[in-house]
Amino acid sequence: MKQFLSQRDVYQPINFVHKALEYKRGGFSAAPQLGLGKTLGLLFFNPSLRTRMSTQLAAAKLGLQTVVMNVGSEGWALEFGDDVVMNGQSVEHVKDAAAVMGRYCDILGIRCFPSLSNRDADYSEQVMEQFRKYAGVPIVSLESATLHPLQSLADIITMEEYKTKAHPKVVLAWAPHIKALPQAVPNSFAQWANVFTNQFTIACPPGYELAKAFEPVLGYEYNLDKAIADADFIYVKNWSSFSDYGKNPPVEGDWLLNEHRLLSNPGARIMHCLPVRRGLELSHDLLNGPRSLVLEQATNRITAAYAVLKEILEALK
Amino acid sequence: MKQFLSQRDVYQPINFVHKALEYKRGGFSAAPQLGLGKTLGLLFFNPSLRTRMSTQLAAAKLGLQTVVMNVGSEGWALEFGDDVVMNGQSVEHVKDAAAVMGRYCDILGIRCFPSLSNRDADYSEQVMEQFRKYAGVPIVSLESATLHPLQSLADIITMEEYKTKAHPKVVLAWAPHIKALPQAVPNSFAQWANVFTNQFTIACPPGYELAKAFEPVLGYEYNLDKAIADADFIYVKNWSSFSDYGKNPPVEGDWLLNEHRLLSNPGARIMHCLPVRRGLELSHDLLNGPRSLVLEQATNRITAAYAVLKEILEALK
Amino acid sequence: MKQFLSQRDVYQPINFVHKALEYKRGGFSAAPQLGLGKTLGLLFFNPSLRTRMSTQLAAAKLGLQTVVMNVGSEGWALEFGDDVVMNGQSVEHVKDAAAVMGRYCDILGIRCFPSLSNRDADYSEQVMEQFRKYAGVPIVSLESATLHPLQSLADIITMEEYKTKAHPKVVLAWAPHIKALPQAVPNSFAQWANVFTNQFTIACPPGYELAKAFEPVLGYEYNLDKAIADADFIYVKNWSSFSDYGKNPPVEGDWLLNEHRLLSNPGARIMHCLPVRRGLELSHDLLNGPRSLVLEQATNRITAAYAVLKEILEALK
Repeated sequence: MKQFLSQRDVYQPINFVHKALEYKRGGFSAAPQLGLGKTLGLLFFNPSLRTRMSTQLAAAKLGLQTVVMNVGSEGWALEFGDDVVMNGQSVEHVKDAAAVMGRYCDILGIRCFPSLSNRDADYSEQVMEQFRKYAGVPIVSLESATLHPLQSLADIITMEEYKTKAHPKVVLAWAPHIKALPQAVPNSFAQWANVFTNQFTIACPPGYELAKAFEPVLGYEYNLDKAIADADFIYVKNWSSFSDYGKNPPVEGDWLLNEHRLLSNPGARIMHCLPVRRGLELSHDLLNGPRSLVLEQATNRITAAYAVLKEILEALK
Repeated sequence: MKQFLSQRDVYQPINFVHKALEYKRGGFSAAPQLGLGKTLGLLFFNPSLRTRMSTQLAAAKLGLQTVVMNVGSEGWALEFGDDVVMNGQSVEHVKDAAAVMGRYCDILGIRCFPSLSNRDADYSEQVMEQFRKYAGVPIVSLESATLHPLQSLADIITMEEYKTKAHPKVVLAWAPHIKALPQAVPNSFAQWANVFTNQFTIACPPGYELAKAFEPVLGYEYNLDKAIADADFIYVKNWSSFSDYGKNPPVEGDWLLNEHRLLSNPGARIMHCLPVRRGLELSHDLLNGPRSLVLEQATNRITAAYAVLKEILEALK
Repeated sequence: MKQFLSQRDVYQPINFVHKALEYKRGGFSAAPQLGLGKTLGLLFFNPSLRTRMSTQLAAAKLGLQTVVMNVGSEGWALEFGDDVVMNGQSVEHVKDAAAVMGRYCDILGIRCFPSLSNRDADYSEQVMEQFRKYAGVPIVSLESATLHPLQSLADIITMEEYKTKAHPKVVLAWAPHIKALPQAVPNSFAQWANVFTNQFTIACPPGYELAKAFEPVLGYEYNLDKAIADADFIYVKNWSSFSDYGKNPPVEGDWLLNEHRLLSNPGARIMHCLPVRRGLELSHDLLNGPRSLVLEQATNRITAAYAVLKEILEALK
């Protein structure tokens, strides 16, 4: 693998999920020396808990040294515009910062959130693309403006572990929130779920459909109860509108899932990428109950990061 | 040892101090491989210098990998309330964050300060207790709302090194400050000093007595000069009132210790946990002079952290 | 080497540059075990990207463990005044913090910027000097109030690699900026360049001459085009006035270098320490073009840090 910015960077996604599960079963001891003498730089433009920790842990299991930079608080404000005269607040151009970090590190992991105000800029993945262009080393997305492939890989790995049929019905279910959130998690999840099963739908209020490229194989479903009635996995997540970009247009009906609404579907498992706002996005009972796979997903963040870093290190040799 | 949140988690405190000193004499080479392949997560809700560095250094001497999270600045604002609807500022519930970190790390070290406004909440150790309940791995206190056991263990180790009699007289002496400080250090020190010697008293102005559970074996002494006249160790520290919780009620008399007031007691040693406000809490002459053990205490933070982590790792096997 | 606060701490600077280049050619494998069991503490009072990363990477190549502290955000506000009563904002005196860190670490690296308001305080290197005095272990400057010797060592190493004559003409060329910047980089560069070549001049507007101690061997040149006409290396950098301390007095003429002004000097190489404000300090065409050595300089930050840490570790044995 030459980079990991999207599901499309993985040659055979489902085979890759199987390989990742093999590494997990082997206690991540497949290649303890593979990263020896090599350095992974982690750049955080935005906060991170699971990604920060799981990536460091996976790197250590491969013998990789990690150097963490909290850009902004520890480093400099970066400039992303082309050919500008830098007489404002930004101190260093991403071209130069990326090129330097590419000289220092063998792999770069980058986390950067969208503006949610300029759709074209966000969907052109300005930050990631400039790092890809100027760093000269493999880039791993730790969540970008529009994609979160490490999260979705962990999600698919988890579903692969818990599925009871070849093509389970997977529902990505929109949930309420008080803030406007990125589309990165649903976009990536849709990419992966569409190759994982032929029974994938998205349940959301009208106006919350994702960009065309992430359309689910079964299309959209605007009635939550109908969508989840026969679901095997229900992935609960809030996101803001793509058409009315970055906004939260008014929503009709009750989109908060709880145990009561799932009584007639005892086998359905509940997923969420965390952090989750309890009582707002998802009920306490579902999160605390036996349907919940959220901790399994979080644990598989190590599995996902390990598989990706291993693949990238192998291509580096 | 299954956890280290309080002196009471140590089976035989004085034996443990002797073991810690043995490790120190051996250059901390007792178990260089014990932590290999294991991870210590350090979570800082509040600033830290000595604790942060000494714990990382002790961990490295045991082969433990350390992952540091500055919660708040690097991660998310956590929610601690039960069954709340999270529609405010907090982004993740401690239940979920603790459970995830418990999946990632083999041991968690946590630092969190008290509110100093809600005594019941502080003394119920809300944050620590939730981590203990939901993380599923051993928790080490890096200072909690009401206790700082690693500091006090280092203090006792230091007194054990410098004592010249079986039961030295130990005085915990209240000192002035401009801010309201937690009771964590005096509480913990009282727990440990009460098992270290039968000659332990606390010198403080009326109104500054600690909670009942931390009463010194010799009772309180309200006259500083009288208390220190025959003291072997004088532990200087400010704390705010427990009865008038978190406040600094007016104080009569001069509570700033200096060399002059100790002229008739040439053997008395001065202790402080640092950071110390020079000239306010303790005089420059005492801090710079030969009585001071403050650097020895700080150095023994490594001794204390090493002994605790070693004991916890042994129980993990 | 007992410390590295200035070029003057290096016994034979040019020999040292040759040794550093040897280490680089050997892939930094000269002494992989030299730092084993030892700890390097890195203290950042100010932001850092290149220094932070390159020093950690160099340390790892020597087997040194690194502990990073962002003083201020992660630790305490430090006091630097002598014999003050600390009843203000500062929480710990540098005497105590330095002494403790010296007990914890075998080497301390420190970054602290100048006030640019009090020249005497800045040029007395208050912070560095107190660490030197109280830490009791070797101190490495990661940029101080008035010097940045690791940067300049990397610069000289780079010129040594690219020079085509024994004594190339080196021009340190002042460039425009919107902020008042420290004199640390030009001061250090002048120290090193004066021993590297007998053809070193500084091109700057009147009023921007450095302190007497850093006068270039060829003296100052106030006409940029004249200075660069026969230059082999042009080191572009902004700095604020030393005489009108910390201010940016008005400047006549155009001090922004670009390809056009160098047409008659095709062999001249362009240097800058980064971060660089593109379009303001230096033109995009020069930075993107084949004359630029800025990435080579940044890469040699590892070479410089490796050579310095190796020398200091050898003196520690």
